Amino acid sequence: MTKGKVPVQNNSIGQAETQYFSFDELLLENGEKFGPVTLAYETYGILNDDKSNSILILHALSGDAHAAGFHKGEISPGWWDSMIGPGKAFDTDKYYIICSNILGGCRGSTGPSSINPKTNKPYALDFPIITIGDMVNAQKHLIDYLGIEKLLTVVGGSLGGMQALAWLIKYPKRIKSAIPIATAVRHSPQQIAFNEVGRQAIMADTHWKSGNYYEGPIPSRGLALARMIGHITYMSDTSMAKKFGRQKNSNVEDTKFTADFKVEGYLHYRGDNFVKRFDANSYLYITKAMDNFDASGGRMLEDVLRGLEVKVLVIAFKSDWLYPAYQSKEIVKACKLSGIEATYCEVDSTYGHDAFLLEIAEETHLVMHFLKKVFHNYEVTGIYEI
Amino acid sequence: MTKGKVPVQNNSIGQAETQYFSFDELLLENGEKFGPVTLAYETYGILNDDKSNSILILHALSGDAHAAGFHKGEISPGWWDSMIGPGKAFDTDKYYIICSNILGGCRGSTGPSSINPKTNKPYALDFPIITIGDMVNAQKHLIDYLGIEKLLTVVGGSLGGMQALAWLIKYPKRIKSAIPIATAVRHSPQQIAFNEVGRQAIMADTHWKSGNYYEGPIPSRGLALARMIGHITYMSDTSMAKKFGRQKNSNVEDTKFTADFKVEGYLHYRGDNFVKRFDANSYLYITKAMDNFDASGGRMLEDVLRGLEVKVLVIAFKSDWLYPAYQSKEIVKACKLSGIEATYCEVDSTYGHDAFLLEIAEETHLVMHFLKKVFHNYEVTGIYEI
Repeated sequence: MTKGKVPVQNNSIGQAETQYFSFDELLLENGEKFGPVTLAYETYGILNDDKSNSILILHALSGDAHAAGFHKGEISPGWWDSMIGPGKAFDTDKYYIICSNILGGCRGSTGPSSINPKTNKPYALDFPIITIGDMVNAQKHLIDYLGIEKLLTVVGGSLGGMQALAWLIKYPKRIKSAIPIATAVRHSPQQIAFNEVGRQAIMADTHWKSGNYYEGPIPSRGLALARMIGHITYMSDTSMAKKFGRQKNSNVEDTKFTADFKVEGYLHYRGDNFVKRFDANSYLYITKAMDNFDASGGRMLEDVLRGLEVKVLVIAFKSDWLYPAYQSKEIVKACKLSGIEATYCEVDSTYGHDAFLLEIAEETHLVMHFLKKVFHNYEVTGIYEI
Repeated sequence: MTKGKVPVQNNSIGQAETQYFSFDELLLENGEKFGPVTLAYETYGILNDDKSNSILILHALSGDAHAAGFHKGEISPGWWDSMIGPGKAFDTDKYYIICSNILGGCRGSTGPSSINPKTNKPYALDFPIITIGDMVNAQKHLIDYLGIEKLLTVVGGSLGGMQALAWLIKYPKRIKSAIPIATAVRHSPQQIAFNEVGRQAIMADTHWKSGNYYEGPIPSRGLALARMIGHITYMSDTSMAKKFGRQKNSNVEDTKFTADFKVEGYLHYRGDNFVKRFDANSYLYITKAMDNFDASGGRMLEDVLRGLEVKVLVIAFKSDWLYPAYQSKEIVKACKLSGIEATYCEVDSTYGHDAFLLEIAEETHLVMHFLKKVFHNYEVTGIYEI
């Protein structure tokens, strides 16, 4: 990993507050109408006079609108705080940053745990099957509401990268560029398989009750297990070996099948924490949307992209085996074939899929450089490794 | 993959029958005494006059004593039938083959589902925590009973490879050679993590009841889920893409969160089938034994191996990400450092960990050549790729 001199500063945007935007009706991709819809969102920085400096941050499976700064009374910052702030990659001195929680989520936006106005009870499984296109369509309502004609960029990792690709294909005239990170045009059967065992873990929990658990105990064990499975896929063999080795927890009661290895304790901890902040039905809906996603809609991606006047920066990580670099290269190849200006970078990280949240120095370097060029309409093409 | 001319013939050993060997007491590695112990086993071929032609086959997590031929009335052969028989890798015209179900298993050998003579009920979690060393110690009782002073080889893949390593280290004077395939000296945290989520899936099933399910419904959903997780790790990204792609099952009812992708249907099928033939508590005991296993007992492996007069053939598979080739190379390196004659082959397969059950042509070639040299006391050293 090249550790170049990167202008990352420890500056925070300070206090952040979640806002809410509601609209009456969303036309879903399946043709149905659904509403009302609320999106939780946060903004950082100031929209400039010609409204040319706005960036939409798109979050991953477990993310939310709180990407940067601190909520009142909390000591942990937003999930991408290291990338967003004065002097950081997404420089709030220059850019106006928007991050919205996705449709189907459970962190302030309308999702299966929201109240269905027809029944005055949570939707549960009456919530419609949604797509990543639906999530992006809902975000477009927000961008319209904010009066932004053209986003400088849309950016996200993993599911966020899928949303960036959906923006690129659905609304190419509303964006100047896109930065899909550690993502895929469509899920491979291995990615689908991992999501399916997570869903099965939730649905096998007797507390799940076909999704109708909101008035009783929640399917916490199933959801924690889904998260544990996920976490294995977010790390790499190497990063796990470095972090845990075969160390044991000395403070664990020595009974049969105790999670006595440190790696086991860590997974339990992450699983149990996740349950406190995430809704099991949201997990089902969002993972299914990811599995069903195909950015090119069954066509050749280069045909879908041809003629689009959008610049693209694709970032992948060498040790990411959940979203392997070959999937990112597929995006780059299609851009090249279709004549889109594209830059590709494969970062030499050992962090696995989690790298998109951790390799801050490298991402900052890449993103700053790219945004500067896009903002000033320079050419961006290039393929390199750092 | 080099497809050389390999003398694999479609010959079967014909009808096979499981036998049972019992002994009163096994001294466990933790110092406790446990008994009585029964091992289910099968033999194929004929033991020669000087008892120099016997081979012990060691099975993987879900295997059993029925490695070759056909049980009366059954149409599927034993689990390694393609490798065992007249003219095959383990040539029953030349060698006497033994395969025993492991201690802790559920296919005829004593395990947690066996009747505890003290209570006349299944042991369940009163079954002692066992080690791979205990499994091998039980097998040694069987080998003693069969009157075999020295095994020509001990061979197995995955957990079977761990047993081969344990034989090599515990009883080097009782074997002429060992063939550990797709295995590891000890589990990495990633391997432990995958086993732990499988165990959690079982223990989260309300039917598990702390292991006391033998008189009621079994924890079938949890066990099936554990097996589904396992199956993802046994295949490779490539083999899944080849076998399933993003194909959907047309005959699946289109409800929410249906397993409509073919890869999902396959995992469900494998999970459901596994439940019919495997005991959930055995799954817990055996995976924990694998996670706790460390062939070198915390010492340097080369120090443990030094001076042993045993020949070793190590086989790994390029796409096996569950037991990556670097783990096999660790065995080879230790053999070389300790002066043991060792051959290493990394087979260029796309089948992932399952390759040890599928790459028959390559394995046959390697094993035949190796066994011939061991049988006639030639030198075997070499490192190559096919």
